[in-house]
Amino acid sequence: MHSEFELISRFLTPASRSTEAGVALGIGDDAALLTPAPGQRLAVSVDTSVADVHFPASAPARAIGHRALAVSLSDLAAMGARARWCLMSLTLPEPDGDWVAAFAEGFHALCRDTDVELAGGDVSRGELAVSVTVMGEVPPGEALTRTGAEPGHHLAVTGVLGGGAGGLAHWQAGERDLSTPLLGRYLLPEPRLSAGMALRGLASAAIDISDGLLADLGHLCQASGLGARLCPESLPLAVGLVDRLGTDPALQAALSGGDDYELLVSLSPDSLEPARQRLAALEVPLTVIGSFTSEPGLQGVDASAPSGWQHFPGERP
Amino acid sequence: MHSEFELISRFLTPASRSTEAGVALGIGDDAALLTPAPGQRLAVSVDTSVADVHFPASAPARAIGHRALAVSLSDLAAMGARARWCLMSLTLPEPDGDWVAAFAEGFHALCRDTDVELAGGDVSRGELAVSVTVMGEVPPGEALTRTGAEPGHHLAVTGVLGGGAGGLAHWQAGERDLSTPLLGRYLLPEPRLSAGMALRGLASAAIDISDGLLADLGHLCQASGLGARLCPESLPLAVGLVDRLGTDPALQAALSGGDDYELLVSLSPDSLEPARQRLAALEVPLTVIGSFTSEPGLQGVDASAPSGWQHFPGERP
Repeated sequence: MHSEFELISRFLTPASRSTEAGVALGIGDDAALLTPAPGQRLAVSVDTSVADVHFPASAPARAIGHRALAVSLSDLAAMGARARWCLMSLTLPEPDGDWVAAFAEGFHALCRDTDVELAGGDVSRGELAVSVTVMGEVPPGEALTRTGAEPGHHLAVTGVLGGGAGGLAHWQAGERDLSTPLLGRYLLPEPRLSAGMALRGLASAAIDISDGLLADLGHLCQASGLGARLCPESLPLAVGLVDRLGTDPALQAALSGGDDYELLVSLSPDSLEPARQRLAALEVPLTVIGSFTSEPGLQGVDASAPSGWQHFPGERP
Repeated sequence: MHSEFELISRFLTPASRSTEAGVALGIGDDAALLTPAPGQRLAVSVDTSVADVHFPASAPARAIGHRALAVSLSDLAAMGARARWCLMSLTLPEPDGDWVAAFAEGFHALCRDTDVELAGGDVSRGELAVSVTVMGEVPPGEALTRTGAEPGHHLAVTGVLGGGAGGLAHWQAGERDLSTPLLGRYLLPEPRLSAGMALRGLASAAIDISDGLLADLGHLCQASGLGARLCPESLPLAVGLVDRLGTDPALQAALSGGDDYELLVSLSPDSLEPARQRLAALEVPLTVIGSFTSEPGLQGVDASAPSGWQHFPGERP
C-alpha cells in the first residue's frame, strides 16, 4: 500500500521544465504559481470523466489518463486557445501503483504532445474518476465562441465523425487492440488544438463535438439564434464505421454518437477557402456538412432522431 | 428527472457580475475567458471532496457545497493569494433538484463571501464527489510558500485547532445542528483568505492545516530542511473540544485531527508583533505554538503519535 503522498510524488510529478512553461512554482506547495502571458485572456474549463459513465472502467489505464486530459483540452481547442497548464484530480478505489504508473504515462505523454504543463494534482480514495482542469491563453477578441454564426455561413467539421460511437461498439464487442482505428478514436482522442488556433480570425462560431453532432449543433444554433440545414450524405464518416455498424447505424453514430472531439465551426463564404488551406497545412481535413439558416430548427435530418448524449437519461458505456 | 444541462443552468449559473470580476466570457461556452490582472502570478489548486471519505454523504447539501469550496480556497489562503475564480465539477448519483439547489446555495454563498466568481462547471452521474479548482492572484515574490522558515523563527497558527476532529465526533454521535460550534468548524470551515493576504511580507513560510498539525508541520519542516519544537500546552483548542472528547483526546485532535483549515506559519522574531497586529485588525487570533530548530525532528510531543490524516491508510469519516 502506498500513501497518497507517495503516489502523487512518484507518478504524478512531471519532469521539470517549469520556467519556460510559465510555472514559477510547481507541484509540492499549497498551490502552483503560474505566469500568464501579458495581455492574454485566460481560457479555463473542467471536465470530469467517471468510470463506466464516460469510459469503461476496464479500459487500459494509459488510455484513461490520455482520454481524461484530451476531453478537457478539446474545450480549449474549441475556443481557439493555446493550451498551457492543467490540474488533475484522480479518485481511485485502491492505490494500485502499476495502474497509476500506466495512467500517468498516458496523461504525461499527451501533456508533452500538446505542450501542456501539469501544475497540480490531488489523489483521493473513491470511485474511479478523473477531473481535469485546463488553462490556456488566447488574445482578447480572438477566441472562438458559440455565438457569431450568420445565415448562409457554412457549417463544417474537422476530421471524421462517428468514431467515438463506433469505437464504443468495438469495445463492447470485445475488441481490446487500441491500434484498431475506431477503438483509438474512442479511447485515445486527439484534441484539435492546432486546428482551433488556426481558425482564429476565420471561424465565426465553434464548439467541440462531445455530446454528438446534433446536440452540439443545437447549442451553436441556440447561441446564435439560428437554424441549420444539414447534408447527411456529406458527413465524413470514420473509416471502418459502416463495416462495423451498417449504413444507417453508422449515420446515426455520426449524428448523435458523441465522443468525437472534432470541431464544429461556422465559416463565412469568404473564410472557407482560407480555413481549408490552414487546416490542410496541419493535415486536418475540413468538411462542409451544411449551412446556417435564419429559420430556426434543423432541416435535412429526421428531427425525431435522438439528439445526443446526456448523462442522466442515457446509460453508457 | 432533470437533464444535465438543465441542472447546470438552473442551479450552478451564478448571478452575473462578470465584468468587474475579471470574467470576459462566463459559463455557457466551451471554456470561460478570464482577464488576469497584469503582472500578477496566478495561484492555482484543485481539491476533490469525496462522500464518506472527506465528508459524510448525509451531511446537509448546503454544507457540502460550502465545504468543497472552502477546502480549496484554504490552499490559496496558505499562499497569501487573493481568490478570484473557481471551477466546480460535481458528480452525483441522481439529479435531485432540491439537493442540487441546496448544494448550490452553500457554494454560491461562500463565493459571495470570498469575492470569488464561479467561471465554469461540469455535472456528471457518479458517486457523490465535488472537485473544485481555485484560481487566485499574488504579486511576484510575495506568495507565502512552504520554504523559507529559519531556525529560531516562531511557529504560529491562526484560529483554533481540533475543531475538525471534534466536529466529526459530534457528527458521529448524532449531532445535526450546524450552529453547534464544533460541528460548524467541521462542516462549514472558513478559509483564512484575509489572514493569508495580511501575512504577505511577514510570514517566512506557510501551509494550511488540512492533514493535521503534525503532518502539515512535517511538510513545512521538510521543505525548509529544519526541525521544530512544539509547546503542546500552548495549542489553541477549539471551544468545547475538551468537554466533547476529554483532555488527552482533545490534544490529540489538535495535533493530528486534520480538517482545521487554519494557517500554520513561520514568523521571524521581528515579524511576530506586526503579524499579530494585522490579524487582530481582522479579528483572527494568532497563537505561537513553538519554534523552528536547526536539528531535524520534532521535540515537545510524542513522536510515535499518529502523524496525521492520509487517504488510504485511514478510514473516515
